[in-house]
Amino acid sequence: MTLDLPKTTDDILTEDVHLVQSFADLNALKQDGARTAIVGAEGTMVTDSEGNELIDGIGGLWCVNVGHKRREIIEAINQQLETLDFYSTFYSFTHPTAAALAAKLAELAPGSLNKVHFGNSGSVANDSAVRILHHYYKRLGQPQKRKVLSRHGAYHGSTHLAIAMTTPEYSDGWHKAEGIVHHLRKPHYWREGDGMTEAEFTDALLDDMKSEIESLGAENIACFIGEPIMGAGGVIVPPEGYHARVADLCRDYEIKVISDEVVTAFGRLGHFFASKDVFGFQPDIITTAKGLTSGYQPLSATILSDEIHEVISGPGAMFLHGMTYSGHPAASAAGLANIALMERDQIPQTARTTGKLFETTLKGLGDLDIVGEVRGSHFMIGIEFVKDKVSKEIFDPSLNIGLKVAQKCQEKGLIARPLGHILILSPTLILSPEQIATIGAILRESITEVMAEL
Amino acid sequence: MTLDLPKTTDDILTEDVHLVQSFADLNALKQDGARTAIVGAEGTMVTDSEGNELIDGIGGLWCVNVGHKRREIIEAINQQLETLDFYSTFYSFTHPTAAALAAKLAELAPGSLNKVHFGNSGSVANDSAVRILHHYYKRLGQPQKRKVLSRHGAYHGSTHLAIAMTTPEYSDGWHKAEGIVHHLRKPHYWREGDGMTEAEFTDALLDDMKSEIESLGAENIACFIGEPIMGAGGVIVPPEGYHARVADLCRDYEIKVISDEVVTAFGRLGHFFASKDVFGFQPDIITTAKGLTSGYQPLSATILSDEIHEVISGPGAMFLHGMTYSGHPAASAAGLANIALMERDQIPQTARTTGKLFETTLKGLGDLDIVGEVRGSHFMIGIEFVKDKVSKEIFDPSLNIGLKVAQKCQEKGLIARPLGHILILSPTLILSPEQIATIGAILRESITEVMAEL
Repeated sequence: MTLDLPKTTDDILTEDVHLVQSFADLNALKQDGARTAIVGAEGTMVTDSEGNELIDGIGGLWCVNVGHKRREIIEAINQQLETLDFYSTFYSFTHPTAAALAAKLAELAPGSLNKVHFGNSGSVANDSAVRILHHYYKRLGQPQKRKVLSRHGAYHGSTHLAIAMTTPEYSDGWHKAEGIVHHLRKPHYWREGDGMTEAEFTDALLDDMKSEIESLGAENIACFIGEPIMGAGGVIVPPEGYHARVADLCRDYEIKVISDEVVTAFGRLGHFFASKDVFGFQPDIITTAKGLTSGYQPLSATILSDEIHEVISGPGAMFLHGMTYSGHPAASAAGLANIALMERDQIPQTARTTGKLFETTLKGLGDLDIVGEVRGSHFMIGIEFVKDKVSKEIFDPSLNIGLKVAQKCQEKGLIARPLGHILILSPTLILSPEQIATIGAILRESITEVMAEL
Repeated sequence: MTLDLPKTTDDILTEDVHLVQSFADLNALKQDGARTAIVGAEGTMVTDSEGNELIDGIGGLWCVNVGHKRREIIEAINQQLETLDFYSTFYSFTHPTAAALAAKLAELAPGSLNKVHFGNSGSVANDSAVRILHHYYKRLGQPQKRKVLSRHGAYHGSTHLAIAMTTPEYSDGWHKAEGIVHHLRKPHYWREGDGMTEAEFTDALLDDMKSEIESLGAENIACFIGEPIMGAGGVIVPPEGYHARVADLCRDYEIKVISDEVVTAFGRLGHFFASKDVFGFQPDIITTAKGLTSGYQPLSATILSDEIHEVISGPGAMFLHGMTYSGHPAASAAGLANIALMERDQIPQTARTTGKLFETTLKGLGDLDIVGEVRGSHFMIGIEFVKDKVSKEIFDPSLNIGLKVAQKCQEKGLIARPLGHILILSPTLILSPEQIATIGAILRESITEVMAEL
């Protein structure tokens, strides 16, 4: 059965008026030329409906870690569908592929994170993590221990609860779940550390967190949730030692730590998981998605410690949670093939070198007049534009500085993601040194041209 | 790359200890023999790891509508992955397959439901519907209009918000979002209509709804959400005319109607959507999932009216919502192929006949002493067991009557789903009359044997 798909840009965009895009100005998208239709992909590149070949500088959306059109993953999905297209992991049912992926994740995740509940998006992985912790504390006779500490600058997804845990800018003009989420300070030294050394700034963040805990009462707080490096909030790398100290503080107060590794896992920072290997702390729960299948299939995981599982799987409690497609066979097969490919080709290990080159190359743009800070690590980079490098004043938002640079990049063959006055790069992890140099050159040219037009 | 999957039951269950099952008694699953591993599927049947062939009487989980191992869907997924494995529908990006599926759904959905936002689970489709309506009313200057009317007996999913809209039994011992959801009476005449005619019962439900609206204030209520036939709450068919009157009442009070067609769509009741074609009402939003891809891929849709879309896509508003895998190419391809297959083979039309036969066959079990009510429609049936047919008293929950019958069924080659003292059947829609007779016979035998053992 050949699908009747629209081919020309006009035909695609005519059908596309029925699609509601995500995180977009829906009114602006009604304008001519506002939408780009991607029609093909291979390796590090994608093709648009006008025939332009573009470097996929955002890796789909922080997710196509092993690159596009990898036969190994496509074949694994196909074989799985031929064998068992779908069965659920509800009630007493299971199937070999979900079981094998759960076992593999238990092997890769740090410490005693050995139990896996699957979902189909990072949003749901985080929503589920909190729901499960609420249940855990209810089982322990502490039903009031349900508040969540998050942070300004965080992005944890877009369910009703996940958006409440996300930085308030992402719910501007929208409602969100009220009452249970409290936002701590953004751990962004360059913007918020004025007049302090980095060590003093870290102390200040921890002091602030401690007072918030004391003020809310640790007996009312279920968990702290944090991305090792904040992603969609602007690629914020916390100060040295911050995560380990946050985790210690949480341990002292008996607050669980959820590490949101939706973006940072599966090689993006050079390791399968970043919490322990890069940042030296042991979470109680890791949530992940994106790189878990390199985007080939919708899949997320909420990985629980044995200790949490012990409590929720004790006698006399129903686990009243799950989605039909939790542990979907095809998605689980994609996850297994993706991990096998990463192990066979040593993709995380290689990313330690090439990712570092990517980081260094992009940080080299810091000499440009409107580049305030280039931050991030390995294949996860944000470029913040400023009107004035000393005062760090930003451009008027109506100028759409990030979008302007992104449009120039796209004309020159690179997809980058504008986020207000920030530009984000989160490419596939298989870029060659030559392609990394090309990306650096396109960014320099594009920024320079935008500067000249200001 | 051949995946290293466990083959024997022992090996599968050894790896499966790392998997957290959904909606299960996790402690009970630790016992020997408590889990069934499904390893293959074709047509109406699945195979377990012991080599038993079983009729898939629950259609995966109300979802494998066209049956297992359909080449047309598997090939469409494969072709899509070969062409474009993944790109997002975030920001200004789109792709032909998501656009084409959105256009197709706009064609199939009733009235002016012409705009589609995709997710990957029914839970998220419902969570998104409410979030979008909150945003809609904020745009209209009515930020306080955010409460949700749901019903006892409803199942709307398992995110923090979706479980709050679900019947309270499903959050027993768990937390849920507080304050915005109000549960109306369960529209179950057989259980709750004592002493009334069905028409009087319907009047009573509507009166109750009207008082609840007056008491909360329509200006505070965003929407009513309801399944045309309640699914996981026990397959509750509302009285004749109920939905149309609920929709009229909502219209009078300017309350939006969300029809949760996660289960009832894509042929299960003989039509692509049931709201208008079966129940005669026009919703403002339809949410759907499951049969949308027949379970081959995780996909859900929140289908909005033009009127809602007009407001949220007006000037000066960001649509701050979406998941990475909203409109995933492979999932969209599965949806298109599934719908094309249904149209080519007239699966919904056929289900009007065979589904009716299924319904009649199962309703024939009503003569058995412990069968209180057999209810539902077409390929969506619930059998409620009672200790006493007159008093309708149920068995002691510790007896696990539903589970006992389901276990007998499975021994005889049929998977059915126990839900306390109810047994649910929601098979593939391609059963032959002979298979329907077999299912009827297995159920009769199993129930009779359990009766004898009581």
